[in-house]
Amino acid sequence: MSSENPAARGASLADRVLAGDPRAIARALSLVEDEDPAAARLIGRLFPQTGRAYVIGVTGPPGAGKSTLVDRLVGGVRQQGRTVGVIAVDPTSPFTGGAILGDRIRMQLHAGDAGVFIRSMATRGHLGGLARATDEAALVLDASGKDIIVIETVGVGQDEVEIVRTADMTVLVLVPGTGDEVQALKAGIMEIADVFVVNKSDREGADRMVASVEAMLALEPFPEGQWRPPILKATATTGEGVPALLETIGRFREATRTRQAERRRERTASRLRESLLSAFSRHLNERVLSREEFNRLVDEVAARRLDPYQAVADVMRRAVK
Amino acid sequence: MSSENPAARGASLADRVLAGDPRAIARALSLVEDEDPAAARLIGRLFPQTGRAYVIGVTGPPGAGKSTLVDRLVGGVRQQGRTVGVIAVDPTSPFTGGAILGDRIRMQLHAGDAGVFIRSMATRGHLGGLARATDEAALVLDASGKDIIVIETVGVGQDEVEIVRTADMTVLVLVPGTGDEVQALKAGIMEIADVFVVNKSDREGADRMVASVEAMLALEPFPEGQWRPPILKATATTGEGVPALLETIGRFREATRTRQAERRRERTASRLRESLLSAFSRHLNERVLSREEFNRLVDEVAARRLDPYQAVADVMRRAVK
Repeated sequence: MSSENPAARGASLADRVLAGDPRAIARALSLVEDEDPAAARLIGRLFPQTGRAYVIGVTGPPGAGKSTLVDRLVGGVRQQGRTVGVIAVDPTSPFTGGAILGDRIRMQLHAGDAGVFIRSMATRGHLGGLARATDEAALVLDASGKDIIVIETVGVGQDEVEIVRTADMTVLVLVPGTGDEVQALKAGIMEIADVFVVNKSDREGADRMVASVEAMLALEPFPEGQWRPPILKATATTGEGVPALLETIGRFREATRTRQAERRRERTASRLRESLLSAFSRHLNERVLSREEFNRLVDEVAARRLDPYQAVADVMRRAVK
Repeated sequence: MSSENPAARGASLADRVLAGDPRAIARALSLVEDEDPAAARLIGRLFPQTGRAYVIGVTGPPGAGKSTLVDRLVGGVRQQGRTVGVIAVDPTSPFTGGAILGDRIRMQLHAGDAGVFIRSMATRGHLGGLARATDEAALVLDASGKDIIVIETVGVGQDEVEIVRTADMTVLVLVPGTGDEVQALKAGIMEIADVFVVNKSDREGADRMVASVEAMLALEPFPEGQWRPPILKATATTGEGVPALLETIGRFREATRTRQAERRRERTASRLRESLLSAFSRHLNERVLSREEFNRLVDEVAARRLDPYQAVADVMRRAVK
């Protein structure tokens, strides 16, 4: 059967993704998540048809209510008549069991709505792989014709910065709590936030949290005409503040059209660099150093008979032109 | 003057580091931190004399009191008659200004004690560089004859896991707080903890924190004969619990002698892989793709005229044997 031929399967899968077929999208995302060799061919075919969707990253500490907020955003985007895809990434979770259950529950909120696609992705060991898989998953949803793509990720560390780098804009969700929390926010994540949302704003301390973020932003110089991240209050469980967030997202998109092209270019550059390193890694494993040879090298270095710089120089001489 | 010749300077610097000269150690650490080309030669010379020190990683969320605890540990180690070096790494801080001030204050605690060396290191842009610099800084202190090396790092994310991977054992410092905090601990960091310390144990909630960690550990299968991470209570400001921590560190070291060799071997393997990728990156920049060419490639991909897989394949054909 021709559908068993990987190339033919890849081809028809691409067409079905481009037609927006949810089952094809799901299959394509699995290939991407599994780092299946067929994913490369598929992305190659989809790539010329991408670049149309607007990608929104939503991140913040665990328990900030990001999923509920994203579900509300999805509802709002649908009311505007636009389609939406959600990729929920948990860099800390090595297994998708819970994620799959979560997907089902979340999809039920939008049951029968072909304009919504929600999918969780988990780590396959290495983070570089996850950032890349997220990037490719966004390309799949983009190619499938989704107008808006939301990348939702848990946490406030370098991992999450890496993942939301795929996005055209980033929403940082916080919750009222101790002032420690804002202090604990890493410099990196504060810098990538284009909009702050203090969620669960009916809780005590919401205004104090807003004031803390205001105080941090006050330290930053925002030149005239540059976007200054607004701080919104929301209560995702009731939907309060969600229309204002949608409006702000629209405003940001308008205000940063030129900057956005530059941002996408930077992202392309860094993804290309990462892909080149992955390709070199494969080259080493498949063509230069057998596993046994590599192990022998490690033994020599571990025994202090060979210094690591010498070891690297020897391998490079054999590996590169 | 021959001291202006880099090779000669490198040679004598290595000898002075091996002799334990604090000024030479400081200079060597600066070379490592600055990723100076002379650092490679220096590490190459020091490397055969390393592998003797025992390396302890100390990590935990901001505000857990790690520095105070480490200062107490340093005192305890010195009382045992052993020498100690501390590398304090803050992956979130891009600048050492504050760190330098902090070093001075901390060094004053051990003023005039040549058996103690404390140094802060900050990010130079990329995390890979920091993990590598930390690794090399530990080699410098090891070569200088320090018996114990403490790598202290702030945070509980993937970055910190990467940094403490240099260590032979890892102490995770927590503070009493909400149960959320333990839940928020990333899977990765829980797995690398060999000892848990609940610091500021005079605070309310200390026992609850101990119980939370107990509950998490109860979910893990620890086979008979395998080290089960103990949970200690401490109050670093008064020194309470520090002798028990020192005793536990000694017990862990004894209990894991075989495992430790394996751990060092794994670390050597992963550092070698990382160094090979860095070397390839330099090869690309210096020999294969001019900045202009790379920019043109990025433009083509960003404009969707070339798919990223094709772009990578083209470059690799020119780069590798």
